[in-house]
Amino acid sequence: MKQQKAIVLLSGGLDSATVLAVASRDFDCHAISFDYSQRHVSELQAAERLAQAFQAYHQVIHLDQGVMTNSALTEMTMGVPVDGPTEGIPVTYVPARNTIFLAHALAVAEVQAASDIFIGVNAVDYSGYPDCRPAYIEAFERMANLATRAAIEGHQLKIHAPLIHMSKAEIITTGADLGVDYSMTVSCYQADEQGRACGRCDSCRLRREGFEASGLEDPTRYQ
Amino acid sequence: MKQQKAIVLLSGGLDSATVLAVASRDFDCHAISFDYSQRHVSELQAAERLAQAFQAYHQVIHLDQGVMTNSALTEMTMGVPVDGPTEGIPVTYVPARNTIFLAHALAVAEVQAASDIFIGVNAVDYSGYPDCRPAYIEAFERMANLATRAAIEGHQLKIHAPLIHMSKAEIITTGADLGVDYSMTVSCYQADEQGRACGRCDSCRLRREGFEASGLEDPTRYQ
Repeated sequence: MKQQKAIVLLSGGLDSATVLAVASRDFDCHAISFDYSQRHVSELQAAERLAQAFQAYHQVIHLDQGVMTNSALTEMTMGVPVDGPTEGIPVTYVPARNTIFLAHALAVAEVQAASDIFIGVNAVDYSGYPDCRPAYIEAFERMANLATRAAIEGHQLKIHAPLIHMSKAEIITTGADLGVDYSMTVSCYQADEQGRACGRCDSCRLRREGFEASGLEDPTRYQ
Repeated sequence: MKQQKAIVLLSGGLDSATVLAVASRDFDCHAISFDYSQRHVSELQAAERLAQAFQAYHQVIHLDQGVMTNSALTEMTMGVPVDGPTEGIPVTYVPARNTIFLAHALAVAEVQAASDIFIGVNAVDYSGYPDCRPAYIEAFERMANLATRAAIEGHQLKIHAPLIHMSKAEIITTGADLGVDYSMTVSCYQADEQGRACGRCDSCRLRREGFEASGLEDPTRYQ
């Protein structure tokens, strides 16, 4: 029986589904998803199905609409990128998003007496996001270990980012080996209500290229 | 004219009112308050009045009720402490609260193009709270400077904690010199709907002792 509990950030996308599978090998998982009027709300439904598949508890946390703003992922008037990587930070970057996500995960970890948090950040495909870099994750972990009652009492908190140096193809083969059904995941920036992908946005392109490179069949449902 | 904008965490209590006064000397202030079903909701009304008094913009951010939990400040079934300091971390500690507050402040700072965040933590009276210590604030600042687009683009973020080493009496005299009307502030853990203090809880006691030590008249409205 897996005794230790871990908190897993689960968006419902390909990366976080893989992280849940990795964490489930060693931990009793408490998955958390965030509702912040992101465009692809079908991700939340995907997250619920993935949590069930891995027998994880699933908690949806509502974030204030007025804060998660200024991004193509939350603003209907901004187009999502379809033209491939650009210089600098993508328009899909949401200000301080991973810091807000991890701060909530830290609170849940403390209440649940968990010392492990898993996050699916990736520094390869998302190199333009400041809060996907190893140095950022390390700095958050260091701060977290000064922030909580648990840390003061000697329970050192660990932030696990198992995908951080993987290519998309490596992520896919890792998850497939662990039984992830990727047809349940939604990566598209503008998926429809049924979770079907547009096939054109940058996230769809990265995902499709990942499946091609992995040699595995792409189960993505397209519009 | 004050050009630079700062984000100020404003609870409506004595400490954060003083911080707003300090920040207002040099910055155009954007105050943020959090609604998380804290017992003393009259603090939010106090925050609104204080923001108006210092001509600050005021934003209320709603936090998920399911996260801000396990504390005597949010759980009606737990009593608030009235017996003075105890060993260890007080029951009024809310898991990861300052991390969640500062994470939101960081997001607002990035959207508002502000490089300065003010927080009224105090390591003297609240020495039992892990997230009120200087080492924690420094670690958060370091993490924040790796987290955002602004940081990557060279705008170093500064977390100001001007009260961190002050006694309650020093906080009161500092704020009084800057024109804070402390009758507008609510510190009580169990204030009534009109913001009147119980006079018995630990927060009331610290506040009353602070006014006595400062030599200033205590304008607190009691029940």
